[in-house]
Amino acid sequence: MITPMSTLQSKYQAVRSMTRSLVAPLSAEDQMVQSCPEASPVKWHQAHTTWFFETFVLRPYLCDYRPFREEFHRLFNSYYLALGEEIPEKKLRASFSRPSLDEVLAFRAHVDQEMERLFACSLDPEVSRRIMLGLNHEQQHQELALTDIKHAFFSNPLRLSYGSAALPKEAPQPSPQLRWLDFEGGITEIGYPLNVAEPLDFCFDNETPCHKVYLAPFLIANRKVTCREYLEFMADEAYTRPSLWLSEGWEAVTRGAWKAPLYWERDAGDAAGWRIFTLKGWHGLAELLDTPVCHVSFFEADAFARWRACRLPTEAEWESIASRERRHGNLLDTGRLHPAVATGAGMEQLFGDCWEWTASPYLGYPGYKPLPGALGEYNGKFMSNQMILRGGSCITPADHVRATYRNFFHPATRWQFTGIRLAI
Amino acid sequence: MITPMSTLQSKYQAVRSMTRSLVAPLSAEDQMVQSCPEASPVKWHQAHTTWFFETFVLRPYLCDYRPFREEFHRLFNSYYLALGEEIPEKKLRASFSRPSLDEVLAFRAHVDQEMERLFACSLDPEVSRRIMLGLNHEQQHQELALTDIKHAFFSNPLRLSYGSAALPKEAPQPSPQLRWLDFEGGITEIGYPLNVAEPLDFCFDNETPCHKVYLAPFLIANRKVTCREYLEFMADEAYTRPSLWLSEGWEAVTRGAWKAPLYWERDAGDAAGWRIFTLKGWHGLAELLDTPVCHVSFFEADAFARWRACRLPTEAEWESIASRERRHGNLLDTGRLHPAVATGAGMEQLFGDCWEWTASPYLGYPGYKPLPGALGEYNGKFMSNQMILRGGSCITPADHVRATYRNFFHPATRWQFTGIRLAI
Amino acid sequence: MITPMSTLQSKYQAVRSMTRSLVAPLSAEDQMVQSCPEASPVKWHQAHTTWFFETFVLRPYLCDYRPFREEFHRLFNSYYLALGEEIPEKKLRASFSRPSLDEVLAFRAHVDQEMERLFACSLDPEVSRRIMLGLNHEQQHQELALTDIKHAFFSNPLRLSYGSAALPKEAPQPSPQLRWLDFEGGITEIGYPLNVAEPLDFCFDNETPCHKVYLAPFLIANRKVTCREYLEFMADEAYTRPSLWLSEGWEAVTRGAWKAPLYWERDAGDAAGWRIFTLKGWHGLAELLDTPVCHVSFFEADAFARWRACRLPTEAEWESIASRERRHGNLLDTGRLHPAVATGAGMEQLFGDCWEWTASPYLGYPGYKPLPGALGEYNGKFMSNQMILRGGSCITPADHVRATYRNFFHPATRWQFTGIRLAI
Amino acid sequence: MITPMSTLQSKYQAVRSMTRSLVAPLSAEDQMVQSCPEASPVKWHQAHTTWFFETFVLRPYLCDYRPFREEFHRLFNSYYLALGEEIPEKKLRASFSRPSLDEVLAFRAHVDQEMERLFACSLDPEVSRRIMLGLNHEQQHQELALTDIKHAFFSNPLRLSYGSAALPKEAPQPSPQLRWLDFEGGITEIGYPLNVAEPLDFCFDNETPCHKVYLAPFLIANRKVTCREYLEFMADEAYTRPSLWLSEGWEAVTRGAWKAPLYWERDAGDAAGWRIFTLKGWHGLAELLDTPVCHVSFFEADAFARWRACRLPTEAEWESIASRERRHGNLLDTGRLHPAVATGAGMEQLFGDCWEWTASPYLGYPGYKPLPGALGEYNGKFMSNQMILRGGSCITPADHVRATYRNFFHPATRWQFTGIRLAI
Repeated sequence: MITPMSTLQSKYQAVRSMTRSLVAPLSAEDQMVQSCPEASPVKWHQAHTTWFFETFVLRPYLCDYRPFREEFHRLFNSYYLALGEEIPEKKLRASFSRPSLDEVLAFRAHVDQEMERLFACSLDPEVSRRIMLGLNHEQQHQELALTDIKHAFFSNPLRLSYGSAALPKEAPQPSPQLRWLDFEGGITEIGYPLNVAEPLDFCFDNETPCHKVYLAPFLIANRKVTCREYLEFMADEAYTRPSLWLSEGWEAVTRGAWKAPLYWERDAGDAAGWRIFTLKGWHGLAELLDTPVCHVSFFEADAFARWRACRLPTEAEWESIASRERRHGNLLDTGRLHPAVATGAGMEQLFGDCWEWTASPYLGYPGYKPLPGALGEYNGKFMSNQMILRGGSCITPADHVRATYRNFFHPATRWQFTGIRLAI
Repeated sequence: MITPMSTLQSKYQAVRSMTRSLVAPLSAEDQMVQSCPEASPVKWHQAHTTWFFETFVLRPYLCDYRPFREEFHRLFNSYYLALGEEIPEKKLRASFSRPSLDEVLAFRAHVDQEMERLFACSLDPEVSRRIMLGLNHEQQHQELALTDIKHAFFSNPLRLSYGSAALPKEAPQPSPQLRWLDFEGGITEIGYPLNVAEPLDFCFDNETPCHKVYLAPFLIANRKVTCREYLEFMADEAYTRPSLWLSEGWEAVTRGAWKAPLYWERDAGDAAGWRIFTLKGWHGLAELLDTPVCHVSFFEADAFARWRACRLPTEAEWESIASRERRHGNLLDTGRLHPAVATGAGMEQLFGDCWEWTASPYLGYPGYKPLPGALGEYNGKFMSNQMILRGGSCITPADHVRATYRNFFHPATRWQFTGIRLAI
Repeated sequence: MITPMSTLQSKYQAVRSMTRSLVAPLSAEDQMVQSCPEASPVKWHQAHTTWFFETFVLRPYLCDYRPFREEFHRLFNSYYLALGEEIPEKKLRASFSRPSLDEVLAFRAHVDQEMERLFACSLDPEVSRRIMLGLNHEQQHQELALTDIKHAFFSNPLRLSYGSAALPKEAPQPSPQLRWLDFEGGITEIGYPLNVAEPLDFCFDNETPCHKVYLAPFLIANRKVTCREYLEFMADEAYTRPSLWLSEGWEAVTRGAWKAPLYWERDAGDAAGWRIFTLKGWHGLAELLDTPVCHVSFFEADAFARWRACRLPTEAEWESIASRERRHGNLLDTGRLHPAVATGAGMEQLFGDCWEWTASPYLGYPGYKPLPGALGEYNGKFMSNQMILRGGSCITPADHVRATYRNFFHPATRWQFTGIRLAI
Repeated sequence: MITPMSTLQSKYQAVRSMTRSLVAPLSAEDQMVQSCPEASPVKWHQAHTTWFFETFVLRPYLCDYRPFREEFHRLFNSYYLALGEEIPEKKLRASFSRPSLDEVLAFRAHVDQEMERLFACSLDPEVSRRIMLGLNHEQQHQELALTDIKHAFFSNPLRLSYGSAALPKEAPQPSPQLRWLDFEGGITEIGYPLNVAEPLDFCFDNETPCHKVYLAPFLIANRKVTCREYLEFMADEAYTRPSLWLSEGWEAVTRGAWKAPLYWERDAGDAAGWRIFTLKGWHGLAELLDTPVCHVSFFEADAFARWRACRLPTEAEWESIASRERRHGNLLDTGRLHPAVATGAGMEQLFGDCWEWTASPYLGYPGYKPLPGALGEYNGKFMSNQMILRGGSCITPADHVRATYRNFFHPATRWQFTGIRLAI
């Protein structure tokens, strides 16, 4: 009789296999590139996510586990200290020509094999919880790997393309008109109601605890801001008017000489005057006018909202809406890898396409406690000068995001798939 | 029959006169110094506050008003554009050897005289509102001027003293023990209920609108953290342990080589091992151990709280407490100019001594609208990467602060009188 | 019978008196300004030059000398270590509101009085030598004080003028045509032949020892490059063509957004399209076209020469010419305070108007030895990445400069009165 | 009858083959690394040197030449302009995951094959000159590739080794004692006497023209400074004493937190207290004490000389000595790849081991003219703030260096194989 594979085991296999698919188009050299300070080489992503399972699952819980290579323990930790003089640790990652990609893949195979051995045992609930954490961690790095490779290919003077096919020509379907959906306020509860008795139930620590918030009545837009709308903002010379911007936003505009979202370049040949670099190569803006604007910073989102006499929603407002909606949208599994035109007459695009900047700084919820030990080192320490984003993007694995999910970046960040939804 | 002077007029005279008293110990040369990027020269503070009345009150509302000198209109605006190549505007202020202090004082006298002429007329409510804003603006600059001159005198290798007398020797009174006061949560309302029909009613735009918030039950300390308690944190090598700090806080510690609060210096001769620079010169830490720790950044406040397994209060928690208390404390009018030991058995030191860092980033309240035009340019544009402080300090004018008052600074700022209150 | 005052004593009085004259138009506040990193406040110049005499002459050589104030010993040394965290020492100088100007003047008077007491004794030759060094040091600071105050007044948005009168209108006298004077090479000797047996004989240590150099035959221009000629260079878009510039020069152009010499500003009202800021206020370029171009960096001088298919002379070439010429020119004593049009049919403008950048980096001559101890700390340590300038400027005291005199600045420096002479 | 291969052709084959040998131990990933701003990826070195032949030889001179790939023309130029926002051009090189190493090798093969076709024709003298320039250019990049890979392997936390074998254990042979060789001065001639009629005669443009210089008599050391001698300098706390350093040198020490030469690390297990990273892995200092100190900046060389009351030789002094000596030494062909102990009783180690910093800034010789056009863009534009080095190193191809050869780097550079010879 065939024992049915456990949910956890099959989820493990699915996530690990997805990583393999995503990196398939990339050569060993591609996986070495680190083209901006936010990015890491794809090879590093592959090794670091594997290091997680070795460090937090196999070493402590699988008897007789033999680490693949002792140095990896320190090498693929995200926070090990720099070794040479004046070399910031993260910059070092691009120096990892060795271990080779082949060796990293052997590391992955070794860990996968040992994980299978582990799955054959009955698992302590703590082990299951850690595996769930490791899988969600790997999904985060799947998204980061695509984000980073997009920037890497854009930085290469040959302007490479990750996907072999171009974006599908969309039917000349206009975006639904912008409408305001009305929500009455009151006390609502946000956060993820984690069932700790159920090891396969999962959320990140920063989604807890569930807690009450009071919301004033508000209006929120039925869809994301489109490139067409953003072009009006640009045409109104928004990038040259300090009064539209937060003070630090204006500094970012000036320092970065920003004139448009990241990945936009002037193109006299395009009807709309620009072309956009996507994971599937360059596309004229004219054919993407109704897609959500993407790769804008919080500062640009905030300035756009001010220019429209609107504002960005808070994360509590967003979550109170999204928790009533089904999680579906243009996520990684659609394979499009770029935002798509909204369809439908309701509340659209809450999930997928591009993360939505909210007006909320990243803070711990009331009563928030990080996980104990090294596992908890991650989220809490970044709760300064970062803004919350919600909803996932076209490169977020579909089963990774949810209404309570909190992403966060510095307000000047543009290399992620980040866009705008308006509120009043 | 003598007409009684109006409240507004007497308030005007009192505030302007207070500025004169505060700068009395300073020479024209002292008023030229700008010793750190956060600071401005005192002469500039004197001129800029006067410019406010000329620009927003006299020019538009006093008929036949003749500006003192046309160039001042642009010169003493805080945001005029830089004139020379590569000279950031603020740095320019230290180049204002002319107008001389004498001329700035003549500018002040001219405006004061013309304001008296204005007070003789019946005032439009809008004029009264603007005068109230101007007076509160001048009080903010009174505090800044003392903050800046403290740093200036500290930067002078002769280590000057602003006040002629030393701090009074305090009776050897210990600080009351740290106790936790218990508050049940629920919906509460914060913000200032501005009565727009009453021109003399005043708050800053960022204190409005009043709005409901939901608070979970919380505990809050009965007094501020003392130097003695902070010394334990230092003795536990807190300044060398990255795990205690926010990531950006650790960067600030490293970059600034911080080892103690600003204005602390090692002193082998002091029983506690340090001396502290105050507006009244150097004092051994041993005699100040029970006074509130001061001149710490948000990052230090946050790390201290984490080390104590506590947290900082949110601004809503703080205001919900403070709005029940009488506004009194060691404010500017005590003349001490340095934090003092707490006394009393209740909720102490909410007002005065030193501003309290909260866990709340500076954001607009729900429905917040800046004032229209140039008057509103100030507050809104800084709502990025700043943290809220509450309660005023020993150099805040007593009638300037209130329970709803929101101060804000970048989290790495230390030159202000800023301290810590714990919550759980 | 009246004893005639010694040469040294009268020279001392003359130099000190000149300092008094030069600072006469400046208020105490003017003397506080430090408007660029190269500059120091004028009050500091006054104190530092006095400190020299106290430290190196009166303390060691005048019996019963009582220092004016003990702290000044450290305060007015150029190289004392920074006192506060992260405050580079030089930036501190602008924090010296105390000692006040009055106290600095009292310090000067005290030292002058004690120097008179010293002059009444018979002087050891070493004392005379040190006094000579101190006087030349003070003359250097006279020039620096004018340089610095020019920048300070330019940085003040009111654009102040140091001299009360405008530049004299020159007769419409054209500059003599550029001609090449021919010199045959061979072995020549450069450097100052210091007679150590004669205490009043003086040169800086970096002018020694005399030594032979071999020069190839060369051509050198009869006068300095004029504004008119420099304007052609600008009109040829030189500031936008990297191929004309040294690599580090192009970086300086880009970083500084240079489009013209320092102190030039576009002026639509001027026939030549520019106005120039001088110590006597703004003047249209049209009336200064034939004066030497001034306030250019070495990089601009070098690029101009390259553009003209010429080069800059080496310091040995320059000195071999200048040592045959009489030292005269538009130096400080003319009172013009700005370069003047050349006159004459010979080798013109070798001395005065503006320093001439040479092609020679600042190095020690073969066999160069710095003075022993603190006195020798000055010159040698800057022999890296500085270029030699020769000939003095319109603000150099006439008896301070000579054919062997070596000035030196970083190649990007523009705040000094620096210009160009061509060679082939 | 077999036609003998021409000298030029066989030299071409030898140089190109040497590049192949040098990169043989490196994987495609190794060739992607760029671990410090001075370095380039090895793959880029391979492509750029090939680009030279395609651009300057094959395109203009081989009829029917079909470029390998049109984009390479711009991609492998050293000075093409940056493409993305804020990405300095040089940093881009690490983004070249494509073309892949395989494609770069195909590019090399294509160019080699077409060069063979060219060699079959009779060559214009200009073509021969360009080929000679291209071969010398490739040899420079051979040295740079090894320099860069050393830093890359050092930056990898695994501390890789380029060579498979360790350094050979040397017989315990002490270095010859330091002696001073005496040279009378006088007029001497330096520079390379290029015979333009002989296309295979070669030197770089900066070695010309030959010209006379006058040298005072001088003493020069018989060998380079050893690690043992440098250790005494360190033991005398040289890295903490500003008085020993040029002002900019002290800044470099402070900024870089230098405490020893680059590639030295404390090692409690070594008898001499340090270990040194070499191309053949780590070696204890104890076994290398008598080898020349290497990887020091000009500032360290200068400070060491000052500490020893000596100085560095000028380039003219060095060349006047070296031009009398036979060119031999520990150059690339010995395969040692690290400096070796001196042997012999004469003037030793002039060539090889490590480049010797001279006291001479990098300037054009009198009458220097860069090559016309793009070929001449290289040398002249760097004649600012660079110091001359002479003699080659243990990774310089033996037939590449000569007595007249002028290398140059910024005075703070340490990643090259650079050492010290003393003079008086």
